[in-house]
Amino acid sequence: MNKRDAQWIWYPGDFEIWLRREVELRRDERLVVTPPIWRVDSPYVSVRFRKKIRLDGDETVRVVADGMLRLVIDGQMMAHGLPSITLAAGEHDILAEVANTERFPALFVQGETFASDGSWQVSHLQTVGYVSVGCGDFADPLSPPSAFHLATAPVTPQSTQRRDRSLLVDFGKETFGFIRLHDIHGDGEVHLHYGESTEEALDSEHCETYDVVRVGRETTLTTARARALRYVNVVADPGVSVGDVSLLYEYLPLSYRGTFRCSNEMLNNIFDTSLYTLHLNTREFFLDGIKRDRWVWSGDAYQSCLMNYYSFFELPVTQRTLVALRGKDPVEEHLNTILDYSLYWFMALNDYYQYTGDLEFVRRQYAGALGLMSFCVSRANADGFLEGRAGDWVFVDWADMPKEGELSFEQMLFCLSLEAVVRFAGLLGDSATAGLYRPMAARLRRDMRAVFWDAERGALLHRRTGGELDGFITKHPNMFALLYGFLEPEERQRLKHTVMKNPSIPAVKTPYMRFYELAALCEVGEHAYVLNEILDYWGGMMLLGATSFWEEYDPHIPVPEQYAMYGRPYGKSLCHAWGASPIYLLGKYFLGVTPASPGYQQTSIRPHLGGLDWLEGSVPTPHGDVRVFMNRDTLRAFAPGGPAVLQFRSSVHPAVSAGQLKETTPGQYDLYMDQPGQTYEVHFALPS
Amino acid sequence: MNKRDAQWIWYPGDFEIWLRREVELRRDERLVVTPPIWRVDSPYVSVRFRKKIRLDGDETVRVVADGMLRLVIDGQMMAHGLPSITLAAGEHDILAEVANTERFPALFVQGETFASDGSWQVSHLQTVGYVSVGCGDFADPLSPPSAFHLATAPVTPQSTQRRDRSLLVDFGKETFGFIRLHDIHGDGEVHLHYGESTEEALDSEHCETYDVVRVGRETTLTTARARALRYVNVVADPGVSVGDVSLLYEYLPLSYRGTFRCSNEMLNNIFDTSLYTLHLNTREFFLDGIKRDRWVWSGDAYQSCLMNYYSFFELPVTQRTLVALRGKDPVEEHLNTILDYSLYWFMALNDYYQYTGDLEFVRRQYAGALGLMSFCVSRANADGFLEGRAGDWVFVDWADMPKEGELSFEQMLFCLSLEAVVRFAGLLGDSATAGLYRPMAARLRRDMRAVFWDAERGALLHRRTGGELDGFITKHPNMFALLYGFLEPEERQRLKHTVMKNPSIPAVKTPYMRFYELAALCEVGEHAYVLNEILDYWGGMMLLGATSFWEEYDPHIPVPEQYAMYGRPYGKSLCHAWGASPIYLLGKYFLGVTPASPGYQQTSIRPHLGGLDWLEGSVPTPHGDVRVFMNRDTLRAFAPGGPAVLQFRSSVHPAVSAGQLKETTPGQYDLYMDQPGQTYEVHFALPS
Repeated sequence: MNKRDAQWIWYPGDFEIWLRREVELRRDERLVVTPPIWRVDSPYVSVRFRKKIRLDGDETVRVVADGMLRLVIDGQMMAHGLPSITLAAGEHDILAEVANTERFPALFVQGETFASDGSWQVSHLQTVGYVSVGCGDFADPLSPPSAFHLATAPVTPQSTQRRDRSLLVDFGKETFGFIRLHDIHGDGEVHLHYGESTEEALDSEHCETYDVVRVGRETTLTTARARALRYVNVVADPGVSVGDVSLLYEYLPLSYRGTFRCSNEMLNNIFDTSLYTLHLNTREFFLDGIKRDRWVWSGDAYQSCLMNYYSFFELPVTQRTLVALRGKDPVEEHLNTILDYSLYWFMALNDYYQYTGDLEFVRRQYAGALGLMSFCVSRANADGFLEGRAGDWVFVDWADMPKEGELSFEQMLFCLSLEAVVRFAGLLGDSATAGLYRPMAARLRRDMRAVFWDAERGALLHRRTGGELDGFITKHPNMFALLYGFLEPEERQRLKHTVMKNPSIPAVKTPYMRFYELAALCEVGEHAYVLNEILDYWGGMMLLGATSFWEEYDPHIPVPEQYAMYGRPYGKSLCHAWGASPIYLLGKYFLGVTPASPGYQQTSIRPHLGGLDWLEGSVPTPHGDVRVFMNRDTLRAFAPGGPAVLQFRSSVHPAVSAGQLKETTPGQYDLYMDQPGQTYEVHFALPS
Repeated sequence: MNKRDAQWIWYPGDFEIWLRREVELRRDERLVVTPPIWRVDSPYVSVRFRKKIRLDGDETVRVVADGMLRLVIDGQMMAHGLPSITLAAGEHDILAEVANTERFPALFVQGETFASDGSWQVSHLQTVGYVSVGCGDFADPLSPPSAFHLATAPVTPQSTQRRDRSLLVDFGKETFGFIRLHDIHGDGEVHLHYGESTEEALDSEHCETYDVVRVGRETTLTTARARALRYVNVVADPGVSVGDVSLLYEYLPLSYRGTFRCSNEMLNNIFDTSLYTLHLNTREFFLDGIKRDRWVWSGDAYQSCLMNYYSFFELPVTQRTLVALRGKDPVEEHLNTILDYSLYWFMALNDYYQYTGDLEFVRRQYAGALGLMSFCVSRANADGFLEGRAGDWVFVDWADMPKEGELSFEQMLFCLSLEAVVRFAGLLGDSATAGLYRPMAARLRRDMRAVFWDAERGALLHRRTGGELDGFITKHPNMFALLYGFLEPEERQRLKHTVMKNPSIPAVKTPYMRFYELAALCEVGEHAYVLNEILDYWGGMMLLGATSFWEEYDPHIPVPEQYAMYGRPYGKSLCHAWGASPIYLLGKYFLGVTPASPGYQQTSIRPHLGGLDWLEGSVPTPHGDVRVFMNRDTLRAFAPGGPAVLQFRSSVHPAVSAGQLKETTPGQYDLYMDQPGQTYEVHFALPS
């Protein structure tokens, strides 16, 4: 008899919350486990799955649980230890209680015409609170979702230097995995000192991570903990010899859908290194960096989500990240304890909807979104502004700036978050919530400008404390104002000079905030400037030998001082997700591809050479990849989904292969690519 | 060097919540694990302990954690794997992060002049939310609180009947523990069918619990699960023989401080059997019954708490029970999902304070009490009344009565709960909360009477639905009204006849509610009637062979039909905590001992013979045991703590050995026992 395809099911969020707990408790600093600085949530211990079914004939059903199972069919408890049950034709009420204290309760039911799937319901209470189950890509009854693990592949080193009792092994580039020792002889300990740099691997006293393994029983040994490294220095006890060292690379399998090639080879290398950096940090979740925390940080993940839309378009990891970040109730602190990081979560969910069109996922997160928003709103002051309260970390950036009081930066994020919730409420037909938050958002948008916009200096001021503005200006709020539409057109143009390119305003020193800074400059047409900055800044890291991009980079500091951070000589992460922003900048502003409506139902293409001779590449969408080629006289574009609009400038009227051309303003053309899945080509001349 | 006494410390509540999870997930029905019908809470995974110390000299400190430990002294992380650390003289900030996903984080620190103890603080967040740690009787660094277990003792059976391949073993009375098989030979399975009755043990198809063990390796085997039983039928596979069967009795060690002896031997037996029943159910927590659920039920525990004050005065189990019942936030449902059971929790905490005077425990539960009260108040209707909502179980009693709508019973419990919180708020100086709930309680007390008191029929009506009273009368609200002061004196006396002894009102059939019924009758002087009821009802169970008291008892049903409940032939628990109420009735109303002020700072003694020739006994208090002897012409009393008042009636002026005598109303005397720790004797004649 055929079996219906079945999926493991669980209480929505529990898989993600369990997995996050597992992953985040793996962080150690020199073998001392360092738990997250926020509340570590656990999945529910005991849940009830239910489903009403109607069978046309008798059916044999297999039921497997991860945990203790109590199965009640039509109110009748099934006896202990049945491998399968037979249900008679007719209607049945299936109730399966599953309890699990170590992992999380999960259920797998496989009949002939029905099976566990997304149509089941689950509650962590008894008779109330039923919601749709969580489920995913777990269809093997022998392998519950708690068996989730990444893929692995063996990797041999690029070089091995043997000295005395030690081997310095170089894998040629930043990587991640389990070290394997081969051809071991003797009995004793082997110390493994990991390094993102040779300096770190050779500094046994200060390397951020190391392992000590006992050998003597087997000739091959694989370490228990996966580590970030390029180098490992293997030091054996006297009497112990290690013949060879390799790596079991651990990674999330995904497709490199986003591509970028252009006339500048350094830029191509920067794009590829960015992709690799992002891939290494795209794992169970979007992690911040692979060496140190391996935690899930909302602000970091916000950027990774955006980069992912221009590279892997790997939605399960985005979903896992957003669900895990939200965590369980009660909300007692900001996400990651950081004020800004609660707000990025709403913005990330909003982006998710825009890029994917997946309203169902938004619907499943909606209750969590409302709970988090209630928490945020409850912490606003009498003026409706957010400022740091006891226990809040106001982050913004690793930068020397005052963070007490009302920061204009945080008010913009708050406003965008409120607007996101209003949008979700509208989409989901919750007019009460929309009516509650819409005026709050509008007031905040107005008051933010009224308080912080200094018309004379043409800049948003940084903050207000005790009702007083202190006149301090940082780039951060100003670049957000450019990105998220808080300014009038003439203010935007002026801001380029008053702030963005003003050398007296402190420079942005983290790739994290350079992401927004350079995106903001693209928003005001500074593509050529941005291209130079990318080549200079990311190219600068590559010239220092980077094989992945860093947590922080100040071009004025020499190596190995570059590796220091947090008061530790190798504290800096040399493979940090937020270092990969060229993916986003090149995809969004140079290939110029964005969803003009949710899920790329309509696509907008605005390619920009930014001074390059040519560029080409692809951007993934739910319908397939958008492809773009551009040089100084030809534009070719392909959009697979609904209609697209190709926007470009030309100094002479272009020749067009297909589609409907319209000159919107002089020299500015919109080409309506109204036949999806067809390549459009335009011949033109760039304006001088 | 001497070591300071150290205690294991943890986040307050986590030990209790973890232990409850362990205990409640042990329930199985014929080997099918049956998880609780309420949300199963987990302890926090990761917490931070902190303490500031000042040392006069250098000190070596031992630090042990149950879980992963990260120790930070004066902002400096300690290296991995140090067995002990040395601190220099001076001030130090100690921060210990402990994470544990399977049990709960706990810490043990032992220096020479300081150690982990109740003075430490802990938070489950980062920089905020620090509270005093939980701690208790765990002082062995090798045995963390997660190693908590009850005591055991070997017990041999009273008789063993051997038939074919089976042995029917009788332990002579209800008991609890692990079965041991001795002198095993052969290889195969042995089935153990447990029975609280012979019928159950011999009914392999329907006995509520059984075990199947594999034998063949050892000649002695102890089962893995402790079971409730008087009988076990041991059935071995062909080729397997079992020589002998014994029991490893599992119990909570405690002192039998409350005693009662009188001129009626059956009453003495009932008291002793009640004590044994209560002891068997007084374990990790006050459990409902030992055979089936072994869950922690608030309404059941409320009575066990009261009985405990007249028997073991074992406060740790009371504390564990109250803490575990409250559980973690968010409050999403009533305790045990039962409306009344949330309310009993407040009443139990109020009693706890009255009997123990332990305000510190109340203080530690206060935040939890406020959270639970907010939940209850949020579910009141526009009239301020509670009624069952979606997901609520309105229990009251296992009795045939309507439970929809506003029950007068629930309004009284709600009112008492509000009054308890107002009292706590007053004691803890929280005038805002007192001011919030005091008028709510007063209004409820007034409205309850206004709506439900039927002056004509002299009774509280059962309920109102849709604004309509349906005229239905049950004993339940009326006995609560007598007990908790909702009626005027003349109404109380009249109620005896209109309801309490009115045969047309349905009889109370559970020992659970007979507790309140008989207590209420004592409140209106019906001691002789109550004594007869006890002898009849509890004596009736004993005549049917009870060695512990039952979950439910209807004298009109024969054995073995008595054993049935929940549609199962042996579903009834024959050892149910709420069956033990004679302990409370005899201690409170016959020995007549109650705390006149919190913690027995003042004691009230009102002995009553209720028709007996003599009685004597002791009642435990925080200061020692109150002892009372009374016959028809002599009263002797001893109270160990502060002053006591002995109240009694006499038809002639009594002769008094010591103390100050005062006739309050004719024939009613108060003897002021103003010398604590001294025995007072009175000679008198009872009124006719």
